[in-house]
Amino acid sequence: MREVAVIGVGMTKFGRFPEVSPRDMGREAVWKAIQDAGISPKDIEVAYCGNAVMGSITGQTCCLGQIALKEVGITGIPITNIENACASGSSAFREAWIAVASGLYDMALVLGIENLTASGSVEKTTEALAGASDVEIEGRLGLTMPSVWAMRAKRHMARYGTTLKQLAMVAVKNLKNGCLNPNSQRQKTVTVEEVLSSRMIADPLTLLQCSPISDGAAAAVLCSKEKASGYTTKPVIVAASVLTTGTYDHTREISTSEIEQRASSQAFETAGIGPEDLDLAEVHDCFSIAEIMRIENLGLCPPGEGGRWVEEGLTEMGGKLPVNPSGGLLSKGHPVGATGVAQIAELVWHLRGQAGKRQVKGAKVGLAHCSGGNIAGDTGATTVNILKG
Amino acid sequence: MREVAVIGVGMTKFGRFPEVSPRDMGREAVWKAIQDAGISPKDIEVAYCGNAVMGSITGQTCCLGQIALKEVGITGIPITNIENACASGSSAFREAWIAVASGLYDMALVLGIENLTASGSVEKTTEALAGASDVEIEGRLGLTMPSVWAMRAKRHMARYGTTLKQLAMVAVKNLKNGCLNPNSQRQKTVTVEEVLSSRMIADPLTLLQCSPISDGAAAAVLCSKEKASGYTTKPVIVAASVLTTGTYDHTREISTSEIEQRASSQAFETAGIGPEDLDLAEVHDCFSIAEIMRIENLGLCPPGEGGRWVEEGLTEMGGKLPVNPSGGLLSKGHPVGATGVAQIAELVWHLRGQAGKRQVKGAKVGLAHCSGGNIAGDTGATTVNILKG
Repeated sequence: MREVAVIGVGMTKFGRFPEVSPRDMGREAVWKAIQDAGISPKDIEVAYCGNAVMGSITGQTCCLGQIALKEVGITGIPITNIENACASGSSAFREAWIAVASGLYDMALVLGIENLTASGSVEKTTEALAGASDVEIEGRLGLTMPSVWAMRAKRHMARYGTTLKQLAMVAVKNLKNGCLNPNSQRQKTVTVEEVLSSRMIADPLTLLQCSPISDGAAAAVLCSKEKASGYTTKPVIVAASVLTTGTYDHTREISTSEIEQRASSQAFETAGIGPEDLDLAEVHDCFSIAEIMRIENLGLCPPGEGGRWVEEGLTEMGGKLPVNPSGGLLSKGHPVGATGVAQIAELVWHLRGQAGKRQVKGAKVGLAHCSGGNIAGDTGATTVNILKG
Repeated sequence: MREVAVIGVGMTKFGRFPEVSPRDMGREAVWKAIQDAGISPKDIEVAYCGNAVMGSITGQTCCLGQIALKEVGITGIPITNIENACASGSSAFREAWIAVASGLYDMALVLGIENLTASGSVEKTTEALAGASDVEIEGRLGLTMPSVWAMRAKRHMARYGTTLKQLAMVAVKNLKNGCLNPNSQRQKTVTVEEVLSSRMIADPLTLLQCSPISDGAAAAVLCSKEKASGYTTKPVIVAASVLTTGTYDHTREISTSEIEQRASSQAFETAGIGPEDLDLAEVHDCFSIAEIMRIENLGLCPPGEGGRWVEEGLTEMGGKLPVNPSGGLLSKGHPVGATGVAQIAELVWHLRGQAGKRQVKGAKVGLAHCSGGNIAGDTGATTVNILKG
C-alpha cells in the first residue's frame, strides 16, 4: 500500500433546498473539488459515491453516483455506490483511498450526497432515517435515533454526573463555530438557556441538541502521493483510514461504544500518533450527547470527562483540542451521505491554512469520525480518518 | 496487485420466499460459502454486501450487510454495503477482490442479497426496480426495464433479422439448463410455442422471456493466491475483474452497448485471453433479447449473429460456448443484489468440476457479466469477471 494525498475538496452549502436536485448538488460539489485540485474531469480514473437513504426519499434506488457524475462529464470509469448509514460518505472515502493506495488507480474521486427534504415530508424522511437501525428488531421497538441517544444521555448523566448545561454547551460551541462557516446550515449563536428551552425532542435532548434535516453534497479528489506534487504544493496525506463494525453485545453499557474505541485505536496505531498530536477533530455530533460520548470513546479525553471538557472550553476554538470547528453536524447540518466527505473537506482546509475565520492556527494533524447504523446492537459502521498536512 | 483466488462459494435456492427474512437468506449463503472454504467466520477480515433495492422494499435503508453478517458471527471487521443496480453483487465482488489484491487483507467475503417479494406487492417491487433507471428523466417517460428491452428487441429484429423464434429459444435453452440446477427458480422445460404464447409483457417480450421476481442470497470467500493453497487444492483465480460505467450518448444505436463492449475488451486484455478461450459464460439475461445482444457486445459472437447462434445451438450445453448453464436469470431467477455473486458461484462450481448434471466438461475458464442501471443514457454499471480454474 502506497501513500495517498487529498488534492482537492469541495462542498455545497448545507441546508434545506427542496427545489435543488441531488444531481445538481453533486455536480456543484464535484466541480468545486475538481477545480480545487486543478484537474480535469477526465483525470478521474475511479469514483465512489456515498449515499444512505435517497432510494426511500426520491425513489432513485440505484446508481445515484453514475447519474450525478454524468453531469460533470465523469463517465466511462468504474463508479461504485457505497452505503454505510451515517458513515456512508466516509466509507466511500475509504474505498477511494484503497483504490489509490493499492496502486490500481492514481486518481480517485469521492462524492457524498443526501437530499433529505426531497421526500416532501418530515415523516417520510424520519422513516427513511429510521431504516439505519435494525428495522426488524429496533424498528419494531420504536428505537429511533433520538430516543436511543436520549437514553444514552440519561445513562451518561447518571454514571458520570454529566449535566444538562454541559449537554447544551456542545450546541452552544458548535453553533458558534458554525457562524464562521459559510457552508453551515444553522447560522446563529445561541445561549445555554436558549438550547435548553428549545422544543423537547427526546428528554433530555432538545431541538438545538439534535442535528437538523439537511440537503447537501461534498467531494474530494485523492491522488497517489508521488503524483500529488504535480498538482499541489500542499498535499494532505491520508495517515489512517479505518472502518469497522461492532461486536454485538446487548448487555453492553450504553454510555460507551466499543466500536468507536476500537476504530480509534486502530487509526492512531496506523498513523503512528496519539490523540495528543491532534490539532483538531471533526466528530459525529448527531446529538449533543454524541459529541461528549465520542470524544471519550475516541480517546480524545478521559472516560466520563467529556462533559467537563466541554464546560471548561477545552474543545472550543483556541482550546486544548478544537472539536468540530466546522460547526459539526449540529450547526453545519447532516445530509447523511455527504457528512463524512464534508468532514474531510474541513480537515483539508485547516491543514492547508485555508479555513478562513475558523482556522485552527498551524494545524498539522486532524481526525474525522463518523458512526452510523444499528444502534443497540452496535453493529453499524464507524470510520476514523486521520489526515496530515 | 497480487493474485486472488475464490476458495468458497454458496447460495440459497432462488425463488419466492416472502416468509424468509433477508438476514436469514444471507446467513444461509454465507455459512455455505464459509463451510465450502473450510474456514471459520473469524477468518474473514473484510466484507462487502451487494444489494440494490431493499431500502425501498422493506424500509431497511442501511447496513443490510452488517445485520446479515452478524447472524453468522462476522462482526468487528470493516463491512461496506455496495449498490450498482443489477451489478450490485458483482461490484461488491470486485471491491472484495481489490481489498485482497491490494495486500490490505488476506481473506474477504462478498455477500449479495435481495428479497423482492418482501414488499408484499408486485407494484411496490416494480416501483423499486424502476428506481434503477434515471428516475428524474426515464422514470417520468415511463421507460421501465421491460419497455426499453422491448424496444431494443424490435430494433435488433429490424437491423439484424433476429426472429421471435430466436428470442424464444433463449428462454427454452435457459429453462432447460435451469432444470439441472437445484437452486433455480423456474424448474420446467418449455417449448418455443409455450414461450411465445405466454402472457405478453412488452411486445415482443412475453412472460417467459422476462426474468422472474425473486428472493435469494449468494456469497463467496476470496483469499490471496499464496494463502489459498492452505485451504483448497482447487483455487479458482480471478483473472480479471472489470467495472465501468457508460459514456452518455442519447444518439447511440440501442441494439448495441458501448459500455459492455468496453468492459469486455478490458477484461479479456487483463486476463490475457480472448473469447475463444472461454469454456462457459454466465451472461445477464434479464430478458431473452438481453442475452442475444450481450453475447454480441461481449464479443462472444459476431455482431448481429446472437440470434443465429442461439437458434443453431451454439450456446447450448455441449455447444461451441455454453451460455448460462446455471439457467441464467430467466430460469434461476434474479434477486438483484445476489445475481452477480451467484454467477461467481456457478463459475467456481464448473471450474472445480462440481456443477453436477449441468457440468461443462473440463471447464478451465469462465466469464460472468452483469449490467444494471440507467438505461437510455447507458450510464449504469457493467461488470465482467473472468475466472480460471
